[in-house]
This record gives sequence, C-alpha cells and structure tokens, in this order.
Amino acid sequence: MQKRLNWQGRRACEEIWFPARVPGNIQQDYAAFKGFPDVHFGENVNAFRALEDDVWLYRAEFDGLELDGERLFFVADGIDYRYEIRFNGRLLLEHEGMFTRAELDLTDLLLGKGNRLEITILPHPLAPETRRGDGRDEASWSCKPPVCYGWDWHPRLLSSGIWEDAWLETRGEDFIRECSCSYRLDEDLSGAEVSFRVDCGQTPVIRVWDPDGRPVYEGTDCVFRLENVRLWWCSGQGEQALYQYEVRTDSHARTGRIGFRRVRLLMNEGTWAEPSGFPKTRSVPPVTLCLNGRKIFCKGSNFVRPELFPGEVDEEVLRPLVQLAKDAHMNFFRVWGGSEVNKEPFFELCDELGIMVWQEFPLACCCYPDDEHYLSVLRQEASAIILRVRQHPSLMLWCGGNELFNNWSGMTDQSLPLRLLNSLCYELDPSTPFLMTSPLMGMAHGGYLFRDYDTGKDVFTSFRESKNTAYTEFGVPGMPDPAYLREIIPEDELFPLRRGGSWELHHALAAWRENGWAHQDIAEIYFGKIDSLEQLCEGTQWLQCEGYKAIFEEARRQWPHCSMASNWCYNEPWKTAANNSLLCYPHQPKPAYEAVKAALRPVMPSARIPKFDWTEGELFTAELWLLNDSPEETEDTVTAFLELDGETVEVLQWKTGRCGPNAHKQGHCLQWRLPRLESGVFVLRLESGHGSSAYRLLCRPADNSVRPKILNM
Amino acid sequence: MQKRLNWQGRRACEEIWFPARVPGNIQQDYAAFKGFPDVHFGENVNAFRALEDDVWLYRAEFDGLELDGERLFFVADGIDYRYEIRFNGRLLLEHEGMFTRAELDLTDLLLGKGNRLEITILPHPLAPETRRGDGRDEASWSCKPPVCYGWDWHPRLLSSGIWEDAWLETRGEDFIRECSCSYRLDEDLSGAEVSFRVDCGQTPVIRVWDPDGRPVYEGTDCVFRLENVRLWWCSGQGEQALYQYEVRTDSHARTGRIGFRRVRLLMNEGTWAEPSGFPKTRSVPPVTLCLNGRKIFCKGSNFVRPELFPGEVDEEVLRPLVQLAKDAHMNFFRVWGGSEVNKEPFFELCDELGIMVWQEFPLACCCYPDDEHYLSVLRQEASAIILRVRQHPSLMLWCGGNELFNNWSGMTDQSLPLRLLNSLCYELDPSTPFLMTSPLMGMAHGGYLFRDYDTGKDVFTSFRESKNTAYTEFGVPGMPDPAYLREIIPEDELFPLRRGGSWELHHALAAWRENGWAHQDIAEIYFGKIDSLEQLCEGTQWLQCEGYKAIFEEARRQWPHCSMASNWCYNEPWKTAANNSLLCYPHQPKPAYEAVKAALRPVMPSARIPKFDWTEGELFTAELWLLNDSPEETEDTVTAFLELDGETVEVLQWKTGRCGPNAHKQGHCLQWRLPRLESGVFVLRLESGHGSSAYRLLCRPADNSVRPKILNM
Repeated sequence: MQKRLNWQGRRACEEIWFPARVPGNIQQDYAAFKGFPDVHFGENVNAFRALEDDVWLYRAEFDGLELDGERLFFVADGIDYRYEIRFNGRLLLEHEGMFTRAELDLTDLLLGKGNRLEITILPHPLAPETRRGDGRDEASWSCKPPVCYGWDWHPRLLSSGIWEDAWLETRGEDFIRECSCSYRLDEDLSGAEVSFRVDCGQTPVIRVWDPDGRPVYEGTDCVFRLENVRLWWCSGQGEQALYQYEVRTDSHARTGRIGFRRVRLLMNEGTWAEPSGFPKTRSVPPVTLCLNGRKIFCKGSNFVRPELFPGEVDEEVLRPLVQLAKDAHMNFFRVWGGSEVNKEPFFELCDELGIMVWQEFPLACCCYPDDEHYLSVLRQEASAIILRVRQHPSLMLWCGGNELFNNWSGMTDQSLPLRLLNSLCYELDPSTPFLMTSPLMGMAHGGYLFRDYDTGKDVFTSFRESKNTAYTEFGVPGMPDPAYLREIIPEDELFPLRRGGSWELHHALAAWRENGWAHQDIAEIYFGKIDSLEQLCEGTQWLQCEGYKAIFEEARRQWPHCSMASNWCYNEPWKTAANNSLLCYPHQPKPAYEAVKAALRPVMPSARIPKFDWTEGELFTAELWLLNDSPEETEDTVTAFLELDGETVEVLQWKTGRCGPNAHKQGHCLQWRLPRLESGVFVLRLESGHGSSAYRLLCRPADNSVRPKILNM
Repeated sequence: MQKRLNWQGRRACEEIWFPARVPGNIQQDYAAFKGFPDVHFGENVNAFRALEDDVWLYRAEFDGLELDGERLFFVADGIDYRYEIRFNGRLLLEHEGMFTRAELDLTDLLLGKGNRLEITILPHPLAPETRRGDGRDEASWSCKPPVCYGWDWHPRLLSSGIWEDAWLETRGEDFIRECSCSYRLDEDLSGAEVSFRVDCGQTPVIRVWDPDGRPVYEGTDCVFRLENVRLWWCSGQGEQALYQYEVRTDSHARTGRIGFRRVRLLMNEGTWAEPSGFPKTRSVPPVTLCLNGRKIFCKGSNFVRPELFPGEVDEEVLRPLVQLAKDAHMNFFRVWGGSEVNKEPFFELCDELGIMVWQEFPLACCCYPDDEHYLSVLRQEASAIILRVRQHPSLMLWCGGNELFNNWSGMTDQSLPLRLLNSLCYELDPSTPFLMTSPLMGMAHGGYLFRDYDTGKDVFTSFRESKNTAYTEFGVPGMPDPAYLREIIPEDELFPLRRGGSWELHHALAAWRENGWAHQDIAEIYFGKIDSLEQLCEGTQWLQCEGYKAIFEEARRQWPHCSMASNWCYNEPWKTAANNSLLCYPHQPKPAYEAVKAALRPVMPSARIPKFDWTEGELFTAELWLLNDSPEETEDTVTAFLELDGETVEVLQWKTGRCGPNAHKQGHCLQWRLPRLESGVFVLRLESGHGSSAYRLLCRPADNSVRPKILNM
C-alpha cells in the first residue's frame, strides 16, 4: 500500500500555513500563495531574493492505518537540500543532500489518530568565507547544484523543498527493499549473463520479456544467461531494444528494463602517433565512443535544468525536450554538472528514444574542497546517483563536473572530490567510462561567440583551424523572436537595449561579456548599424544559424580525429532575452534549432567554407564533402549552386562514389570569383539525393556601399 | 617467540634436494648447488633460460614446540610469485602475488615431531596469447614485475621463491595482529592529531619519543595530540625528524617511526594561464611538490631493482645506494614500476636520509587488461603495498606505473587497472598524491641519447627548447672503465664491439637502438673515428658527463615552471657494458655520477650553453645563472673563465645581488669569439663563493683538421 499525503508549508518567520505541492518547491508554493507575479516577466524574479535565508516547514497529518503486521514507512525520493524530519514530535533524521532517498520506519511511533510528519528545510548552503549574493561559490562546499546561485543564462533563484516524490508505504515480510539488475555481455555481444541483486525476506520470482513482449526467462535464479540478445543502440545506429523484467514476491513486485549494450571510450584516430620526438609527454586521453563495438560520432547538445524550480520537472516537461533532440538527429546529451542530475523520466525517455547521456555530478566551475564533511556528503550523494542511473542503457559516461581543470575553477587531478568520484564510479559501475571533467586534454570548450574579440576570426575560420578530439561546448548566441521578447521585456524597455533592467536580468547584456548575449556589436560588424529590435533579432538569429551549422559540420568533417560535438546549450530553464540555446523556454525551437537539425542529418552534402564574410572580387572557395554517420554505406551526386542576386548558377557536380558506414568522403574544392552583389548576400546550395544544404553568406561590394539584407531571411 | 627454519629446495623434475636460503631465490640456490658460473660474465646468464618453465619445491621440517596455550603461525612476508603452501600434507593456501604477506595458523595440524612445511612455486606468469621468450608482455596479465622478462638494460632472468623473510611465530591472546599509525597535521603545521589502529585482544600501552629520544606520549588512548611537532624534511631542506613509537601488551610489542610532513602537488607556475583562447582545452596537471608548505624542486634519479635476484636485496645492498644519492644532493628517487616495490629497509633508509620516494606500482610498458582475475590480484597486491609503504614519511607520491599512456603501452585513463589503483590509493592513503602514470600531460620522458638521430640536436639544444613541467626520465649513455668491462666481456671480444655476443647481451649493442647503448656512432660524430676501447669509454663518458650536467642544470633553470628532474637511470642490477646509469653495479660511481653531483649542488653558478659542439670563429654564448634550491637566501660573485689551449682568460665578473630561497637568479650573457684551438677543446669555468662549475666543450678548427683530445679528460 502506498499513500500520498496532503502537505502544508510555512515560512518559519511567518505564522501562516499554505498548501504545498509534493513534488514541488516550497518557495514556489509560498509565491503562489502570496500572489507573486509571473517569474519570467521583467524583474519579477528578484522577489525571491528576500527568501534566501529562510527556514521553511512542511507538515502533513494522517490518522491511523491498518497495518496487519506490516510496517509503515515514510519514503522521500529526494528533498532539497538540508533538512530534518520529525514524526509525532520525534526527530528521526537530520540530512544533507537532495539526491539520496530518505526511508523512515514510522511504525513504533504510530498513533491511532492525528499522526504528524514534519520536515524542516534549513537555509541554502553558504560555503566558508562566502556571503549571500556571492554567487556559485556559495555552493562550493556542498552538493547543491550551483546554477541556482546565478549564471550567465540563469537568474539567481534559490529554491528548496520536497522536489522528488514522497509517500507513505506499508511493507510486509516479502517487501523487496532493493532490486537491481546488471549483466555481462559476451565478448562477441551474442549473449549475456544477467544478474539480479535482490534484498528481500522471500525468494522472488524473476520474469524477463524481450522487446516484443515474448517471455525469455522465468525462475528464481538470480543469475542466468540470455542468448541472442538484441542490443540497445543510440538513435541513428539501430533499435532501442528494451527488455522488461518483473521481480515478484507474494505481495510485492518491482519492474524495470534492461538494455544490453557495451560502451567504451577509445583513443581518437591519430592520437597514438602524438606526441612524436623527445622529450615526449603522453598521448591525449580517449574520447571516441564505441557502442557495441562500433565507433560513433557523438552529436548532441548540452542539456541544462529545464525549470527554475526543479520540483516542476516531470515526464511532461521532459518528453518534448528529448523528442526534439531525436528529431534533430542528435544521439547524445551532455548533462551539465551545474544542474541537478535529472529525475528518472529523463533517463527513461533517453532509453526509449536512443539519446545517450553524458552525466555529470553536481560540480561546476568551483573549487570544491578536500574537506571531510563535503567529501562525506559527496560520497553519499554520488553513490545514490550512480546506483540509480547505472541501470539505464542510455548512460554513456560519468563525468566529475564542468570545467574543473581550468583556472576559473582551480581543481586538479589531485583534488580529492574527483578522486572520490572516480573511486565510486569504479566500485559501483566499472563498465561505464569516467572522465574527471570536461574538457580533458585534447578536448575543447568554447568559443561562445560568432566572432572572437581577440583574433577577429569567425567560427568558420577558428574551428577549421582547430584540431581537437571533441568539441563538448561551443556557442553562438541568438535572440528569440520579438513576440517572445515582449512576454518578458516591458514595452518601454524594448529598444534600444539598456543596462540595469530587464534586458540585463534576462542575460542580453552584461552576461559573461559586456555586450552579451545580445551582442549587437558583433551583429553590427556584419550588418551595419541596427535600428530596431526586429533587425537585432534577425541578425543574431542569422549568425546563430550559420555559426552553429558551420561548427557542427566542421566537427563532423574532422571525424574520426574528432569524435564529439555538442553545442552550448540545448534548452533553458526560463525565458531568456538572448542565449546560446537552441530552444526557448520551455521547448520552442529557435531558427538555430532547424539549422542544427539540418547540419546533423545522418547523410548530407556539406561545404567547408573558410569564412562567413566575403567581398566582391574575392575567389570564393568551398570544399565539398559527403557526410555519412549512418551505419550503412552510401553514395550520391552532389550539385552545387550559387544564388547571386536572384540568379541561380549551377557551378559544380560531384559524383561521390562509395562512402562507407560512419565515414565521410572529401570531394572537390569549388572556386568561384565573386561578382558585385546588390543584396550583399549570396547562398551556396548543395543538392543531393539526400536533400540539400544551404549556406547564407555575405558578399560586400568592394566600396562597402551595400548593407546586407538581414531582413530577408 | 619467532623461529627461523632450515629450508631445502628442489627442482620438481629432479630428485635432489639442495640448501635453500630464505630470503632468497630458488633458481639462484639451484645455480649455486649446480655450480653455475658467475652470472655477470660473458653469456653465463643464459644458463637460467632452461629453468623458466619449472615447478620448484621448498620444504622445512621441525619438531613439536611448547605452545603454552598460544597458537603457532607460519608467516612469510612475500613469496615470488604463484605458490601453494602445505603443512603436514594439508593444502593451506593457494596464492598469486609476491607483495602480500602469508599468515597461516598451523596449530590444529601440529604434530609432536616431524612437522613439514612445503611450498610449491608454480611457473612464471605467461599472459594469454604470449609464449615463453616473448618478453615483458608475458607479465602483462600479472603483478610480476616485468623487468625480469628482459629490458634494454636487464637480461632475461626469471627468478622466484621466498624473496622476503619467513618464520614460525607463536601468538598469545595479547598478540598485536595489526598496528598502524596515522596523523592529521594542523593547517598551520604546528601540532598533530595522532591515531593508532591496533588489532589486539588486549588494550596496549602506546609510547612515543621525539627525535631526541624524549618521551612525548604514554597512554592507552589510540588518538591523541602532539603539540609543536618537529617536521620531517627531505634532504637539503631541513632535518629528517623521526619520532619513535612502541605499542606494547604484556608479552608483545611493535615499534615504528613517525615523520610528520604534508605533501601536495600544486600547479606548476604559469600553467593556469594556459591554454589561452578558444576553443580551449584544460590546463596541464600539477606536478610541483609542496612539502610542509614549501615548493621544492625535485632533483633525483630513477631507481631500478638493485639485484637480478630480488631475494638478495637487504639493508647492506641498499644503504650505499641511498647514501650516494644523498651525497649527490638528490632529494628524491622515482622508483620505476618495472621493478619490485622495494623492501622495508629501502624506505627506512630514505626516511633517515631524506630521499623522497615516488613509488610506482608494478606496471610498466604493457597493456594491463580489464580482466577480472588480474584486477583481483592487483587489488590484493596494491592494497598490501599501500598499507605497508604509507607509513613512511619519505613517500612522496603514488604512481600507477611507467609510460602507460604512450603508444608502446596502449593503456588510457579509462583502463580499469589504473582506475582501481587510483581508487585504492584514495581509500587507503588519500593524503598522498596519485598519478596514473609518468609522463602525464606536460611532463616528459626522454630523450635517451646525447644527440637525437632525427633532429641532429644535442641535449644542450633540445632541453633548452623544451618547456615541460617535469623531466622524470632522460638519459645519456656512458660506458664503465675498461677494467670493469674486462670483468664481463671475454678478452677476445673486447674490441671492436660485435653483435651477437657478450657486448649485445650486456646491452652495449642492439639495446633499444641498433648502436645502443655504446653508441660509438654518436661518439664518432664528435671525436672522429674511435680506434680503441679506451677511446670509446672515455668518449662516451665525456658525453654522459656533459650531457647530464647540461640537462639537470637546464631543468633547474626552468624552475618554477619545471619542478622535477630525474635522469634515467640511477643504478643497475648487474654489470652492464653500457647504460644510462650513474652507478655501475653494485654501487660504483661512473664519472657521470660526479658530474651530476656537481650539477645538483644546492647553490651553484651555472651556464646555459646553446650547444656542445662549436667551431673556430663562432660567437660562443653562455647565459650565467646562480642556482639556489636551498631554503636560505644567498648572494654571490660569479667569475667566468675560458680555458683555451692551456691559457686561462677571465672574461666576465657578475655580482649576483640577493637570490631568494628556492629561487634562481638569471645573470648576464657572456659572449666570446672563439679562436682557433689546437686541442679542439675548450672549457668554460665559473668560479664563485659556492665553488666552481666547469663545462668541457668542443671547438673545431674551421678546416676540421683537429680531432678533439678525448684522451685528456
């Protein structure tokens, strides 16, 4: 028997109780009760600043239950972040950490009527030598995800409370306390030895069904073989074969799924040959994903928390996000360590839809200490995370956290928190790769702008000149449409953009850089002075579309030396006014989403173009490629057209010949002297049997007399 | 009561028993019994090849013992490598691994008379898909140190047997089964919380004495504080303060030493600033040793097994080796993973003499597998090593093994053996740094020749152009004196050197490279055709002396960006005919030892010289430095002299001004047009208040008519 409770909440310094949702967040319940205005609009989010140092209370009351010799438990899958639980006045638990399940036996304290559960939520973490308002450093001695303390795309908004499900549960003798399933695949991937670990007072019956629902095992042995298993593949490489299992005793059952797959990180092609000569350092670490014996280019995006209030996240919030990634031909998410580790529905969706998960622990951009208390909380939290998530076939690798080995974080390979995470992952899930952080040597993060301030190079140029093993973060900012912006920016602030108000709070100004993320300055380099919000939106969208396409396609062309590309970032937890994301909150595609979708098609023609911005009379060059990261051989005919002031010119035809599975083919280099164009714009279009690819580029007249027509996208 | 036994040995395929030494090696006992000739001479070592696939037996007999209610144990500190132990016919232990102690309770099987202990030594490890004679790969699925399978400075010689001490022991109720001591230093290093873990049936009394023998604690509390502790320092930086302790019960006691010190690895200077720009990878890992809060340049050498038969190693073998390192101003050894982890006397000597120990696990230059059995043996062996060695203040860091992240090994950061070692070190000894291998990114191994074949650059040039964070291996080969060579090379082979005989077996030819390690070809580039063994020895010795001096001094000048230098290698386990070592077996200094000793003086004048080989008329340049890695500020006057065909010219005087502790001072650049020199040789000599430094260089006449006088060293 499970039973949900009716919860009430209270701000400790006020007398009034208000309805509290579970799962939920106590500050959000309070805000609803008090009638706080829409958090996404204007500067409303700042109202939550006043609640940061508060203590909060939850209570739920219930009358006696028929136990029939069973025991009564209170179970909470996760409570954010530091809390105490009392039952009928007795303190049962003092706890720190939001990822660990609480399970409390209430039986001996149970009354016939008027039982009361109380949960006290203590103030948000505040690391030594930090003060309220310092930002993410406040969370650097805790396992609280640092993003809520504010980021360049996330407002400061500290929430807490019962963010995962919680309920009462009766447990008999045959209750299955723990149940986990693991397997060992044969070397040739044909069969598997399946093992169940069950903690139960009775021997349960185990049943397994194949992905078509046909029974393949029934028995009481906890270790057994399955022959001819169907493998789980990521999207684009094969089926997402999921077996079902049930572990049943007389009065209790647990169910789950198994996806058989083997995941390894192999050395990237060419990296064993480096360095050459003496004195010689080591070769860079491996980051080529090998799934079921097949090397795969990982194409995806950085997933961040989808809501400001993590209690809001459920299957309904998550499904469109994961589905849109699959639709865009992505095969993985990097789940960034600044956010929460996602709830179960996220992993279930990824299992079903074939999106592999690079899962980071909740560490990002801080120097987490070699402190005994912190290490003990991290051990507890990380263990709970590993034991839960390791069951999912979509899990691709564990990572200690974000950018910890760069100077803005200051951690090193010797930092005990990262050595602990390696140790826990080794002991609890040795068959899944582990990275201490991203980037590791050879991999890269950044840049985050269409054009680099220091070098003046655009992303067409800088990524063509880079030779990294993985591009696990790179960004080009773009703005939403004006209609969306009107939902968050008050009318009187709309144009021109000004510091100090809603634009800044929504990250369009003074985010990371002075002019970010709107970066009107960069748009004006290409399009001349911008006079309206419409021009600004369309200009930054254009740069975001062409920039992301250029980087993703370039990263793919660098395969197999480069093996991953995931832009920063995929989604956003609230309505930003400018961001590197592909989706506007909650899951509304920007034009850049469509551009990335086009750039990630499994088979497609692609052009390596040296730069975005050309001038009349220059010799335009573009190297043609056929990209193929499908598991089948292909071949095609690619025809290149130039669209020049309304005229379409066929300039080249290339018969590619055979192109192997998960391999690309390099073709001719198209060269064309650029004429004077009155529009200031030209398009390179590649037609093929696998659809077309188009690149919208600038071509200024030699006298610079024409402004590119940014309003005609 | 402890009692040594008299052991006999037998080759299983022969009937005869022979005397066996414990500690010892069974093949050596057999060889002594059979009268094998001197293993160091000619090709005699090959006689051991015939014994490689044998099974060996040990036996020892004893009559009943008065136990008085105590129990009787057989204890063996280590048996090499895979073995079974039987007592009175009963199999008590099947074991793999030479670093784990065996402790067997014999009491219940004890007879009044004629008790018999039998140990069966099984054949040497042979990894899957390898065959006898394949070399180190044979050991790649085991924890057997791979060096005995043959290396470019070590003959193939597979030994096994009771290589550590073994004895009978009676144990009463109050026997102290385990006793270990750890401490936590205060942040400001002033005091320490000392903890004893004692496994015993009685509460023992603990006594501690300070380094002067004054009692500082007596009591039965296992955790207590000591105030104003004296810190343990490495040689050159302070005293080697060692506290003594005794843990005593009624009838048993254990003693040990404590050295209070804190060791950390910090980022090397300048490395946080790199890389700059986007796309950006990580900063290189830290390798600057910080001892008790003081950053120290680590100067030392690579220690390899000191004997072909590890059972031979004892305090007498080890003391001169450690003492010579201290005498040469070294402060650390890198104990290379191809060898055994040393016996206790090595660490005790290092504790006493202030030589820090970089300790590697027994993995080197192989691809150790993600295999369950191998991992379980590695877990057992590594745990035993960590629990023993962590007690020593000289322990500076743990390292997974040698050159595992380069293509000749093929392991990566994802390899489970290395993840396991990181995990074990974290759990058992978290306060000691851990490196997965050497080199890590930024660090370097090699080169190993005075002159690089590919680039034609000598070590003066190549190290000046390198910018690594640590040079943990670099080598310049040199030969012993002719008299020493006559002890190993038969008279009729002496000159010229020929392949296929004693020279090759003793590594002078076809070792690593075709002409190595004698490298007459390189000597002839500098000195012209070599006509005698004497010329060859003196020429290679000259290059070894000047080469090592150049590299060590250059590495020191690169401090604090570079933080370590240790040449390959320090010692050797047998009499080689040519080697990169500083000492000839067993501990006879080569001229290069004296050169390195001169280059490692704490305070000294030093010259950065662009190359070794000059020509008449060239502008000779040398940048002057005052090196100071003493903990005190210093200052000096450096006078530079050139010795030109017997004439000494004073060319420059530099008053250095103040030079801080553990810091160097860069001075003037001396420039001098080189005249024609009839000797072909000139010397730069720097005189200072801290002694002189001299560099013996070549200066060929422009017409190349003079041969440098190599016979006049």
